[in-house]
Amino acid sequence: MIEAPAIPEIEAFLKCRTPQAWVNAALAQLDILLIDHAQCEKKAAAAAMSLMHRHTERTELLKKMSQLAREELLHFEQVVNLLQERGIVYQNLSPSRYADCLRKHLRTSEEGRFIDLLIIGAIIEARSCERFAALIPHLDTPLAKYYRSLIKSEARHFVDYLQLAELYSSELIGQRVEALLQVEQDLIESPDTEFRFHSGVPTIDTL
Amino acid sequence: MIEAPAIPEIEAFLKCRTPQAWVNAALAQLDILLIDHAQCEKKAAAAAMSLMHRHTERTELLKKMSQLAREELLHFEQVVNLLQERGIVYQNLSPSRYADCLRKHLRTSEEGRFIDLLIIGAIIEARSCERFAALIPHLDTPLAKYYRSLIKSEARHFVDYLQLAELYSSELIGQRVEALLQVEQDLIESPDTEFRFHSGVPTIDTL
Repeated sequence: MIEAPAIPEIEAFLKCRTPQAWVNAALAQLDILLIDHAQCEKKAAAAAMSLMHRHTERTELLKKMSQLAREELLHFEQVVNLLQERGIVYQNLSPSRYADCLRKHLRTSEEGRFIDLLIIGAIIEARSCERFAALIPHLDTPLAKYYRSLIKSEARHFVDYLQLAELYSSELIGQRVEALLQVEQDLIESPDTEFRFHSGVPTIDTL
Repeated sequence: MIEAPAIPEIEAFLKCRTPQAWVNAALAQLDILLIDHAQCEKKAAAAAMSLMHRHTERTELLKKMSQLAREELLHFEQVVNLLQERGIVYQNLSPSRYADCLRKHLRTSEEGRFIDLLIIGAIIEARSCERFAALIPHLDTPLAKYYRSLIKSEARHFVDYLQLAELYSSELIGQRVEALLQVEQDLIESPDTEFRFHSGVPTIDTL
Protein backbone atom coordinates (compact mmCIF):
# COMPACT_ATOMS: atom_id res chain seq x y z
CA MET A 1 0.00 0.00 0.00
CA ILE A 2 1.25 3.43 -0.93
CA GLU A 3 0.64 6.04 1.77
CA ALA A 4 -0.78 9.45 0.91
CA PRO A 5 1.53 12.37 1.67
CA ALA A 6 0.50 14.76 4.46
CA ILE A 7 -1.30 17.83 3.11
CA PRO A 8 -1.97 19.87 6.28
CA GLU A 9 -2.31 23.26 4.53
CA ILE A 10 -4.88 21.83 2.10
CA GLU A 11 -6.88 20.18 4.88
CA ALA A 12 -6.80 23.38 6.91
CA PHE A 13 -8.08 25.31 3.90
CA LEU A 14 -11.01 23.11 2.84
CA LYS A 15 -14.07 22.86 5.09
CA CYS A 16 -14.55 19.09 4.81
CA ARG A 17 -12.90 15.85 3.78
CA THR A 18 -14.08 13.69 0.91
CA PRO A 19 -16.84 11.36 2.16
CA GLN A 20 -15.91 7.66 2.26
CA ALA A 21 -18.95 6.91 0.07
CA TRP A 22 -17.34 8.92 -2.75
CA VAL A 23 -14.06 6.98 -2.38
CA ASN A 24 -16.00 3.69 -2.57
CA ALA A 25 -17.84 4.83 -5.69
CA ALA A 26 -14.55 5.91 -7.30
CA LEU A 27 -12.93 2.52 -6.68
CA ALA A 28 -15.98 0.80 -8.16
CA GLN A 29 -15.76 2.84 -11.36
CA LEU A 30 -12.12 3.65 -11.89
CA ASP A 31 -12.66 3.97 -15.66
CA ILE A 32 -15.02 6.92 -15.23
CA LEU A 33 -12.72 8.46 -12.62
CA LEU A 34 -9.72 8.33 -14.96
CA ILE A 35 -11.59 9.63 -18.01
CA ASP A 36 -13.06 12.50 -16.00
CA HIS A 37 -9.63 13.16 -14.48
CA ALA A 38 -8.18 13.58 -17.99
CA GLN A 39 -11.02 15.96 -18.85
CA CYS A 40 -10.43 17.96 -15.66
CA GLU A 41 -6.75 18.44 -16.54
CA LYS A 42 -7.71 19.71 -20.00
CA LYS A 43 -10.36 22.00 -18.55
CA ALA A 44 -7.96 23.34 -15.94
CA ALA A 45 -5.57 24.29 -18.76
CA ALA A 46 -8.42 25.92 -20.70
CA ALA A 47 -9.56 27.90 -17.63
CA ALA A 48 -6.03 29.22 -17.08
CA MET A 49 -5.81 30.23 -20.74
CA SER A 50 -9.16 31.98 -20.57
CA LEU A 51 -7.78 34.12 -17.69
CA MET A 52 -4.72 34.86 -19.86
CA HIS A 53 -6.94 36.03 -22.73
CA ARG A 54 -8.85 38.45 -20.51
CA HIS A 55 -5.95 39.91 -18.50
CA THR A 56 -3.26 40.72 -21.03
CA GLU A 57 -1.93 43.59 -18.93
CA ARG A 58 -1.22 41.46 -15.83
CA THR A 59 2.24 40.03 -16.48
CA GLU A 60 2.46 38.00 -13.26
CA LEU A 61 -0.86 36.33 -14.05
CA LEU A 62 0.18 35.64 -17.67
CA LYS A 63 3.34 33.84 -16.60
CA LYS A 64 1.80 31.88 -13.71
CA MET A 65 -1.27 30.80 -15.69
CA SER A 66 0.77 29.81 -18.72
CA GLN A 67 3.05 27.62 -16.56
CA LEU A 68 0.01 26.14 -14.84
CA ALA A 69 -1.68 25.39 -18.20
CA ARG A 70 1.50 23.64 -19.39
CA GLU A 71 1.58 21.45 -16.30
CA GLU A 72 -2.10 20.57 -16.59
CA LEU A 73 -1.59 19.63 -20.25
CA LEU A 74 1.35 17.42 -19.29
CA HIS A 75 -0.88 15.66 -16.75
CA PHE A 76 -3.57 15.34 -19.43
CA GLU A 77 -1.09 13.53 -21.70
CA GLN A 78 0.01 11.30 -18.81
CA VAL A 79 -3.59 10.33 -18.00
CA VAL A 80 -4.34 9.70 -21.70
CA ASN A 81 -1.34 7.33 -21.79
CA LEU A 82 -2.57 5.67 -18.65
CA LEU A 83 -6.01 5.16 -20.19
CA GLN A 84 -4.39 3.65 -23.27
CA GLU A 85 -2.24 1.26 -21.18
CA ARG A 86 -5.34 0.13 -19.31
CA GLY A 87 -7.41 -0.30 -22.47
CA ILE A 88 -9.92 2.38 -21.42
CA VAL A 89 -11.45 4.34 -24.30
CA TYR A 90 -11.23 8.09 -23.74
CA GLN A 91 -14.58 9.71 -24.46
CA ASN A 92 -16.47 12.88 -23.67
CA LEU A 93 -18.32 12.66 -20.35
CA SER A 94 -20.86 15.21 -19.21
CA PRO A 95 -19.13 17.50 -16.71
CA SER A 96 -20.02 17.28 -13.01
CA ARG A 97 -22.14 20.01 -11.42
CA TYR A 98 -19.12 21.10 -9.33
CA ALA A 99 -17.33 23.84 -11.31
CA ASP A 100 -20.56 25.17 -12.84
CA CYS A 101 -22.24 25.50 -9.43
CA LEU A 102 -19.20 27.27 -7.98
CA ARG A 103 -19.17 29.69 -10.93
CA LYS A 104 -22.85 30.48 -10.40
CA HIS A 105 -21.67 32.35 -7.30
CA LEU A 106 -19.29 34.66 -9.18
CA ARG A 107 -19.84 38.30 -8.25
CA THR A 108 -20.99 40.42 -11.16
CA SER A 109 -18.59 43.37 -10.83
CA GLU A 110 -15.51 43.14 -13.05
CA GLU A 111 -13.05 42.89 -10.17
CA GLY A 112 -15.38 40.66 -8.13
CA ARG A 113 -15.76 38.19 -10.98
CA PHE A 114 -12.02 38.11 -11.66
CA ILE A 115 -11.03 37.60 -8.01
CA ASP A 116 -13.74 34.96 -7.51
CA LEU A 117 -12.45 33.04 -10.56
CA LEU A 118 -8.99 32.98 -8.98
CA ILE A 119 -10.37 31.87 -5.59
CA ILE A 120 -12.45 29.15 -7.28
CA GLY A 121 -9.28 28.08 -9.12
CA ALA A 122 -7.56 27.71 -5.73
CA ILE A 123 -10.50 25.74 -4.29
CA ILE A 124 -10.65 23.32 -7.23
CA GLU A 125 -6.90 22.68 -7.04
CA ALA A 126 -7.12 22.14 -3.27
CA ARG A 127 -10.02 19.69 -3.61
CA SER A 128 -8.24 17.77 -6.38
CA CYS A 129 -5.23 17.45 -4.10
CA GLU A 130 -7.38 16.23 -1.23
CA ARG A 131 -9.16 13.68 -3.45
CA PHE A 132 -5.86 12.29 -4.78
CA ALA A 133 -4.72 11.86 -1.16
CA ALA A 134 -8.01 10.18 -0.20
CA LEU A 135 -7.70 7.72 -3.09
CA ILE A 136 -4.00 6.83 -2.87
CA PRO A 137 -4.13 4.19 -0.08
CA HIS A 138 -6.78 2.24 -2.03
CA LEU A 139 -5.23 2.27 -5.51
CA ASP A 140 -2.97 -0.17 -7.34
CA THR A 141 0.72 0.75 -6.95
CA PRO A 142 1.37 2.41 -10.34
CA LEU A 143 -1.73 4.62 -10.10
CA ALA A 144 -1.09 5.40 -6.41
CA LYS A 145 2.47 6.46 -7.25
CA TYR A 146 1.29 8.59 -10.13
CA TYR A 147 -1.35 10.35 -8.00
CA ARG A 148 1.28 10.94 -5.31
CA SER A 149 3.41 12.72 -7.89
CA LEU A 150 0.47 14.94 -8.88
CA ILE A 151 -0.23 16.15 -5.36
CA LYS A 152 2.88 18.33 -5.28
CA SER A 153 2.05 20.28 -8.42
CA GLU A 154 -1.66 20.62 -7.63
CA ALA A 155 -0.72 21.99 -4.18
CA ARG A 156 1.56 24.51 -5.89
CA HIS A 157 -1.29 25.53 -8.21
CA PHE A 158 -3.54 26.06 -5.18
CA VAL A 159 -0.97 28.49 -3.73
CA ASP A 160 -0.48 30.22 -7.11
CA TYR A 161 -4.18 30.93 -7.50
CA LEU A 162 -4.54 32.21 -3.95
CA GLN A 163 -1.50 34.47 -4.26
CA LEU A 164 -2.80 35.92 -7.53
CA ALA A 165 -6.18 36.61 -5.88
CA GLU A 166 -4.37 38.44 -3.04
CA LEU A 167 -2.13 40.31 -5.47
CA TYR A 168 -4.92 41.65 -7.66
CA SER A 169 -7.71 42.21 -5.12
CA SER A 170 -8.19 45.75 -3.86
CA GLU A 171 -9.56 44.38 -0.57
CA LEU A 172 -8.78 41.47 1.77
CA ILE A 173 -10.04 38.20 0.27
CA GLY A 174 -10.61 36.18 3.49
CA GLN A 175 -14.38 36.65 3.70
CA ARG A 176 -14.90 35.84 0.03
CA VAL A 177 -12.75 32.70 0.30
CA GLU A 178 -14.83 31.65 3.29
CA ALA A 179 -18.13 32.15 1.43
CA LEU A 180 -17.01 30.18 -1.61
CA LEU A 181 -15.58 27.40 0.57
CA GLN A 182 -19.02 27.03 2.13
CA VAL A 183 -20.61 26.61 -1.28
CA GLU A 184 -17.94 24.03 -2.03
CA GLN A 185 -18.54 22.11 1.16
CA ASP A 186 -22.19 21.77 0.25
CA LEU A 187 -21.32 20.43 -3.21
CA ILE A 188 -19.03 17.81 -1.65
CA GLU A 189 -21.38 16.76 1.15
CA SER A 190 -24.78 16.81 -0.56
CA PRO A 191 -26.16 13.91 -2.63
CA ASP A 192 -25.16 13.88 -6.30
CA THR A 193 -26.78 11.65 -8.92
CA GLU A 194 -23.74 11.60 -11.20
CA PHE A 195 -20.32 10.21 -10.27
CA ARG A 196 -17.36 12.32 -11.35
CA PHE A 197 -13.93 13.39 -10.03
CA HIS A 198 -15.50 16.35 -8.19
CA SER A 199 -18.99 14.95 -7.49
CA GLY A 200 -20.85 14.96 -4.17
CA VAL A 201 -22.09 12.03 -2.09
CA PRO A 202 -23.08 9.23 -4.48
CA THR A 203 -26.74 8.27 -4.50
CA ILE A 204 -27.75 4.69 -5.30
CA ASP A 205 -28.14 5.39 -9.01
CA THR A 206 -24.56 6.73 -9.20
CA LEU A 207 -23.24 3.16 -9.22
CA MET B 1 25.48 38.72 -37.40
CA ILE B 2 23.71 35.46 -36.59
CA GLU B 3 22.98 33.37 -39.67
CA ALA B 4 19.59 31.79 -40.22
CA PRO B 5 19.61 27.98 -40.31
CA ALA B 6 18.79 26.28 -43.63
CA ILE B 7 15.13 25.27 -43.85
CA PRO B 8 14.96 23.55 -47.26
CA GLU B 9 11.82 21.47 -46.51
CA ILE B 10 9.93 24.59 -45.38
CA GLU B 11 11.00 26.59 -48.44
CA ALA B 12 10.05 23.70 -50.72
CA PHE B 13 6.61 23.56 -49.07
CA LEU B 14 5.62 27.25 -49.15
CA LYS B 15 4.89 28.91 -52.49
CA CYS B 16 6.77 32.15 -51.81
CA ARG B 17 9.35 33.81 -49.56
CA THR B 18 8.56 36.71 -47.24
CA PRO B 19 8.86 39.96 -49.24
CA GLN B 20 11.79 42.23 -48.25
CA ALA B 21 9.29 45.06 -47.65
CA TRP B 22 7.74 43.04 -44.79
CA VAL B 23 11.17 42.44 -43.23
CA ASN B 24 11.89 46.18 -43.41
CA ALA B 25 8.54 47.00 -41.78
CA ALA B 26 9.19 44.44 -39.02
CA LEU B 27 12.59 45.92 -38.20
CA ALA B 28 11.04 49.40 -38.06
CA GLN B 29 8.41 48.26 -35.53
CA LEU B 30 9.95 45.49 -33.51
CA ASP B 31 7.62 46.27 -30.57
CA ILE B 32 4.53 45.39 -32.59
CA LEU B 33 6.26 42.33 -34.01
CA LEU B 34 7.13 41.00 -30.55
CA ILE B 35 3.70 41.70 -29.03
CA ASP B 36 1.98 40.04 -31.98
CA HIS B 37 4.44 37.15 -31.78
CA ALA B 38 3.43 36.57 -28.13
CA GLN B 39 -0.24 36.63 -29.17
CA CYS B 40 0.42 34.16 -31.99
CA GLU B 41 2.03 31.70 -29.58
CA LYS B 42 -0.99 31.92 -27.27
CA LYS B 43 -3.40 31.55 -30.19
CA ALA B 44 -1.47 28.56 -31.54
CA ALA B 45 -1.88 26.87 -28.15
CA ALA B 46 -5.60 27.71 -28.11
CA ALA B 47 -6.09 26.35 -31.66
CA ALA B 48 -4.40 23.07 -30.69
CA MET B 49 -6.61 22.81 -27.59
CA SER B 50 -9.72 23.49 -29.64
CA LEU B 51 -8.82 20.50 -31.86
CA MET B 52 -8.36 18.43 -28.67
CA HIS B 53 -11.84 19.41 -27.45
CA ARG B 54 -13.47 18.33 -30.70
CA HIS B 55 -11.62 15.09 -31.33
CA THR B 56 -11.59 13.25 -28.01
CA GLU B 57 -11.53 9.86 -29.70
CA ARG B 58 -8.32 10.50 -31.66
CA THR B 59 -5.55 9.59 -29.22
CA GLU B 60 -2.65 10.41 -31.54
CA LEU B 61 -4.08 13.89 -32.12
CA LEU B 62 -4.70 14.43 -28.38
CA LYS B 63 -1.09 13.68 -27.50
CA LYS B 64 0.50 15.61 -30.38
CA MET B 65 -1.73 18.68 -29.92
CA SER B 66 -1.25 18.74 -26.15
CA GLN B 67 2.55 18.62 -26.56
CA LEU B 68 2.35 21.32 -29.21
CA ALA B 69 0.17 23.53 -26.97
CA ARG B 70 2.68 23.15 -24.14
CA GLU B 71 5.53 24.21 -26.38
CA GLU B 72 3.62 27.22 -27.71
CA LEU B 73 2.80 28.28 -24.14
CA LEU B 74 6.46 27.99 -23.17
CA HIS B 75 7.33 30.25 -26.11
CA PHE B 76 4.57 32.64 -25.02
CA GLU B 77 6.18 32.91 -21.58
CA GLN B 78 9.60 33.43 -23.15
CA VAL B 79 8.32 36.25 -25.38
CA VAL B 80 6.48 37.86 -22.43
CA ASN B 81 9.79 37.84 -20.51
CA LEU B 82 11.55 39.31 -23.52
CA LEU B 83 8.95 42.10 -23.72
CA GLN B 84 9.45 42.83 -20.03
CA GLU B 85 13.26 42.95 -20.39
CA ARG B 86 12.88 45.39 -23.26
CA GLY B 87 10.35 47.56 -21.45
CA ILE B 88 7.62 46.86 -24.01
CA VAL B 89 4.07 46.81 -22.60
CA TYR B 90 2.17 43.70 -23.65
CA GLN B 91 -1.28 44.63 -24.92
CA ASN B 92 -4.04 43.22 -27.05
CA LEU B 93 -3.50 43.92 -30.74
CA SER B 94 -6.14 43.34 -33.39
CA PRO B 95 -5.27 40.06 -35.14
CA SER B 96 -3.95 40.11 -38.70
CA ARG B 97 -6.21 39.03 -41.55
CA TYR B 98 -4.01 35.96 -42.14
CA ALA B 99 -5.51 33.12 -40.06
CA ASP B 100 -9.08 34.34 -40.51
CA CYS B 101 -8.73 34.52 -44.30
CA LEU B 102 -7.21 31.04 -44.41
CA ARG B 103 -10.08 29.68 -42.30
CA LYS B 104 -12.63 31.25 -44.65
CA HIS B 105 -11.58 28.53 -47.11
CA LEU B 106 -12.38 25.63 -44.78
CA ARG B 107 -14.52 22.99 -46.47
CA THR B 108 -17.95 22.60 -44.89
CA SER B 109 -18.09 18.81 -44.54
CA GLU B 110 -17.05 17.50 -41.13
CA GLU B 111 -13.98 15.66 -42.41
CA GLY B 112 -13.12 18.43 -44.87
CA ARG B 113 -13.18 21.07 -42.14
CA PHE B 114 -11.09 18.95 -39.78
CA ILE B 115 -8.43 18.08 -42.36
CA ASP B 116 -8.29 21.68 -43.61
CA LEU B 117 -7.72 22.92 -40.04
CA LEU B 118 -4.75 20.55 -39.75
CA ILE B 119 -3.36 21.64 -43.14
CA ILE B 120 -3.79 25.32 -42.19
CA GLY B 121 -2.00 24.53 -38.91
CA ALA B 122 0.92 23.14 -40.93
CA ILE B 123 0.95 26.19 -43.22
CA ILE B 124 0.97 28.69 -40.34
CA GLU B 125 3.81 26.83 -38.60
CA ALA B 126 5.79 26.70 -41.86
CA ARG B 127 5.31 30.42 -42.50
CA SER B 128 6.29 31.30 -38.93
CA CYS B 129 9.48 29.28 -39.41
CA GLU B 130 10.23 31.03 -42.69
CA ARG B 131 9.62 34.47 -41.17
CA PHE B 132 11.93 33.76 -38.22
CA ALA B 133 14.62 32.72 -40.71
CA ALA B 134 14.03 35.88 -42.81
CA LEU B 135 14.38 38.10 -39.73
CA ILE B 136 17.36 36.45 -38.00
CA PRO B 137 20.24 38.04 -40.01
CA HIS B 138 18.86 41.54 -39.25
CA LEU B 139 18.16 41.19 -35.52
CA ASP B 140 20.22 42.00 -32.43
CA THR B 141 22.16 38.96 -31.18
CA PRO B 142 19.93 37.87 -28.23
CA LEU B 143 16.75 38.05 -30.32
CA ALA B 144 18.41 36.40 -33.32
CA LYS B 145 19.62 33.54 -31.10
CA TYR B 146 16.19 33.16 -29.57
CA TYR B 147 14.46 33.05 -32.96
CA ARG B 148 17.02 30.49 -34.15
CA SER B 149 16.04 28.30 -31.21
CA LEU B 150 12.35 28.57 -32.15
CA ILE B 151 12.83 27.44 -35.75
CA LYS B 152 13.50 23.83 -34.73
CA SER B 153 10.28 23.41 -32.75
CA GLU B 154 8.11 25.29 -35.25
CA ALA B 155 9.48 23.05 -38.01
CA ARG B 156 8.56 20.02 -35.92
CA HIS B 157 5.05 21.39 -35.44
CA PHE B 158 4.73 21.83 -39.22
CA VAL B 159 5.55 18.14 -39.69
CA ASP B 160 3.19 17.11 -36.85
CA TYR B 161 0.22 18.91 -38.39
CA LEU B 162 0.90 17.52 -41.85
CA GLN B 163 1.28 13.97 -40.53
CA LEU B 164 -1.99 14.23 -38.60
CA ALA B 165 -3.76 15.48 -41.75
CA GLU B 166 -2.39 12.47 -43.67
CA LEU B 167 -3.28 10.08 -40.84
CA TYR B 168 -6.92 11.17 -40.50
CA SER B 169 -7.81 12.00 -44.11
CA SER B 170 -9.70 9.35 -46.05
CA GLU B 171 -8.16 10.65 -49.30
CA LEU B 172 -4.77 11.97 -50.43
CA ILE B 173 -4.28 15.51 -49.16
CA GLY B 174 -1.86 16.84 -51.82
CA GLN B 175 -4.44 18.76 -53.88
CA ARG B 176 -5.99 20.38 -50.83
CA VAL B 177 -2.58 21.41 -49.47
CA GLU B 178 -1.83 22.96 -52.87
CA ALA B 179 -5.10 24.94 -52.91
CA LEU B 180 -4.61 26.30 -49.39
CA LEU B 181 -0.97 27.17 -50.11
CA GLN B 182 -2.17 29.27 -53.02
CA VAL B 183 -4.54 31.19 -50.74
CA GLU B 184 -1.62 31.69 -48.36
CA GLN B 185 0.70 32.94 -51.08
CA ASP B 186 -1.82 35.60 -51.97
CA LEU B 187 -2.09 36.71 -48.31
CA ILE B 188 1.71 37.05 -48.12
CA GLU B 189 2.20 38.78 -51.48
CA SER B 190 -0.80 41.15 -51.61
CA PRO B 191 -0.86 44.61 -49.98
CA ASP B 192 -1.94 44.68 -46.33
CA THR B 193 -2.81 47.85 -44.45
CA GLU B 194 -1.94 46.42 -41.01
CA PHE B 195 1.51 45.24 -39.95
CA ARG B 196 1.56 41.99 -37.99
CA PHE B 197 3.69 38.82 -37.71
CA HIS B 198 1.75 37.17 -40.56
CA SER B 199 0.74 40.27 -42.55
CA GLY B 200 1.12 40.82 -46.30
CA VAL B 201 3.13 43.44 -48.18
CA PRO B 202 3.09 46.64 -46.10
CA THR B 203 1.37 49.63 -47.64
CA ILE B 204 2.58 53.15 -46.81
CA ASP B 205 0.13 53.52 -43.90
CA THR B 206 1.46 50.32 -42.27
CA LEU B 207 4.50 52.23 -41.00
